[in-house]
Amino acid sequence: MVRSPPIDSVGLVTQHKAVFEEPLALDCGRELPRYELVYETYGELNRDASNAILVCHALSGNHHAAGYHSEHDRKPGWWETCIGPGKPLDTNRFFVVCSNNLGGCHGSTGPASINPHTNKPYGDQFPVVTVRDWVRSQASLADQLGIKQWAAVAGGSLGGMQALQWAIDHPERLRHAIVIAAAPRLSAQNIGFNEVARQAIMGDPEFHGGRYYDYGVSPRRGLAVARMLGHITYLSDDAMRAKFGRDLRGSMSFDFDEVDFEVESYLRYQGQRFVQDFDANTYLLMTKALDYFDPAAEHSDDFSAAIEPIQCSTLLLSFSSDWRFAPSRSREILRALLQKEKPVSYMEIEATQGHDAFLMPIPRYLEAFSAYMGNVAREVEI
Amino acid sequence: MVRSPPIDSVGLVTQHKAVFEEPLALDCGRELPRYELVYETYGELNRDASNAILVCHALSGNHHAAGYHSEHDRKPGWWETCIGPGKPLDTNRFFVVCSNNLGGCHGSTGPASINPHTNKPYGDQFPVVTVRDWVRSQASLADQLGIKQWAAVAGGSLGGMQALQWAIDHPERLRHAIVIAAAPRLSAQNIGFNEVARQAIMGDPEFHGGRYYDYGVSPRRGLAVARMLGHITYLSDDAMRAKFGRDLRGSMSFDFDEVDFEVESYLRYQGQRFVQDFDANTYLLMTKALDYFDPAAEHSDDFSAAIEPIQCSTLLLSFSSDWRFAPSRSREILRALLQKEKPVSYMEIEATQGHDAFLMPIPRYLEAFSAYMGNVAREVEI
Repeated sequence: MVRSPPIDSVGLVTQHKAVFEEPLALDCGRELPRYELVYETYGELNRDASNAILVCHALSGNHHAAGYHSEHDRKPGWWETCIGPGKPLDTNRFFVVCSNNLGGCHGSTGPASINPHTNKPYGDQFPVVTVRDWVRSQASLADQLGIKQWAAVAGGSLGGMQALQWAIDHPERLRHAIVIAAAPRLSAQNIGFNEVARQAIMGDPEFHGGRYYDYGVSPRRGLAVARMLGHITYLSDDAMRAKFGRDLRGSMSFDFDEVDFEVESYLRYQGQRFVQDFDANTYLLMTKALDYFDPAAEHSDDFSAAIEPIQCSTLLLSFSSDWRFAPSRSREILRALLQKEKPVSYMEIEATQGHDAFLMPIPRYLEAFSAYMGNVAREVEI
Repeated sequence: MVRSPPIDSVGLVTQHKAVFEEPLALDCGRELPRYELVYETYGELNRDASNAILVCHALSGNHHAAGYHSEHDRKPGWWETCIGPGKPLDTNRFFVVCSNNLGGCHGSTGPASINPHTNKPYGDQFPVVTVRDWVRSQASLADQLGIKQWAAVAGGSLGGMQALQWAIDHPERLRHAIVIAAAPRLSAQNIGFNEVARQAIMGDPEFHGGRYYDYGVSPRRGLAVARMLGHITYLSDDAMRAKFGRDLRGSMSFDFDEVDFEVESYLRYQGQRFVQDFDANTYLLMTKALDYFDPAAEHSDDFSAAIEPIQCSTLLLSFSSDWRFAPSRSREILRALLQKEKPVSYMEIEATQGHDAFLMPIPRYLEAFSAYMGNVAREVEI
């Protein structure tokens, strides 16, 4: 941020921490004896607490969705394009909450937190959490904040799946689900990419079975490889072509230690930057939660049976060049909702940016999202 | 092989070695003082040496393209579907030659070979070779075999690019180029995947800067990750769905050391099997040769100018579900050839198998390939 924030930004924000001393029962059969969730809020909660929106983050995201942490902060939160005054999640009208998922590495209880049973970091002893577990913990957060019903739960990618899980698990606690660039479950190819990422991390000798905190190291090289791979799947082939083409940084080096192509330089940089503030165990947990997300599994693979409990209205958005969670995956969700006669709006946005499009200021995307949220706002007493 | 080989197999084969004592000048500016190429041949060379076909292998392939090495051999060569009596590359009519590329790890001079200057394995001192270098070395092999002109040079993927390079560099030395599932050059996405693979290998502490032979180790974990990633790009999303779906091996394990999904089990197995007989330095070299392949680069990115020298006829084949080198990439080659009024045939084969389809017994593929090769055979005096 350079001195004063842009006029359509929420500006300087601070994080809060919610502490839960009641144990949380998890899908894996274990429980967390106590846990903390860090979160941020933007805008103001109205009198009847009817204008609250929960934003769910994606694989590598966190609770810092909008605004700046200090005057020296150069980058705003990850969904700055969509959260702020006059933006789709309009902070003049809504009270927006975003929490760091359990198992995260930015303040919520996670693998680097102290395990009260051992007084050492959890490491590999942190339980494998699921999207349902996250929803469960966020429901407790909603209770603590005095929010009985969200005006909407919104998210892109893994965050969109989480919004969907909210609608299934707590039908009475949200009026709208905003599910962007998501899928009813991962494909074998999606799982394959996640598995390669995990193997890169777990194969790094500095992983030490997940107990690397005890050794004062971290599997940085493996995590960087995982992130580089992720990045390729977030961008469309076209977007990569437009961004880098086959541009050489200089002449061909004929040397493996050198960088030949711009795309290599970009990916290496992304990998190196990522490992500076992301925890490898969290990456494992987030990818596993993605793999396990499958509401249809308990309904003989019938996704429409899985979404039967939904009572809210749903907005589905997808992007034409997204090959990680392609528009066809959103249409699977659409078909199930239509089959069960649930209120649903769907728009496929023409966009060249691939999966990452949900983070980008694409006019048609922001217009559609704003139009829908305008209707949501009209239901609310500001 | 169980006792006797199938009737349409070339049966038991042995490998040959060609030794070249003349230095080979390379694109990188260095030279190899001497080198060896291992190769296999199938069928018989006719009197005027006009029925010879050169087969070029892909990234992880080698000179063993057809037949069996012993009675106990359970798997035939990598292109058994296309080479043999009555097959597209019909060994009753053609004399088929396949050599291991320079830099390989199955007998040709490569990074594990002894560097005559140091009497130690080349390791990281092995020069970065290009597709053009391979063509140069194969031209010397053709001289040694007394083959002035190939009836055809054929290959899939990287092998198809090599066939194209042959047609550009030695227009008078081949009558047909068979270019299957290839591209005029790699996309930024293709290079990105290769770079992730290289980083996985080079980041493995047992890589030792490429000099791991000296330490009696090898970067197996990194190479396995690279291979797993490669495998995902060889299969179509549909093929993976058909093969594995989201089938769990048991129940959800909630344990990162366990295998949850069939696709994970398959990829881990492929990775582990691959590292048993493939050299990591060779993997680096092959991916770099792919990245550098770009005939248009010397012609201001004008691919049609690059293929101007071609005199042979070309058969282009692509597969509908191939997303590594999609049909649109073959059509780029087609357009350039048509623009320069070169004789060319093109067929896009409907196939669900992805990039790997070029190795598979797909009836329409084999029929088209056979029909074309029947015409090639009719030009030859058997």
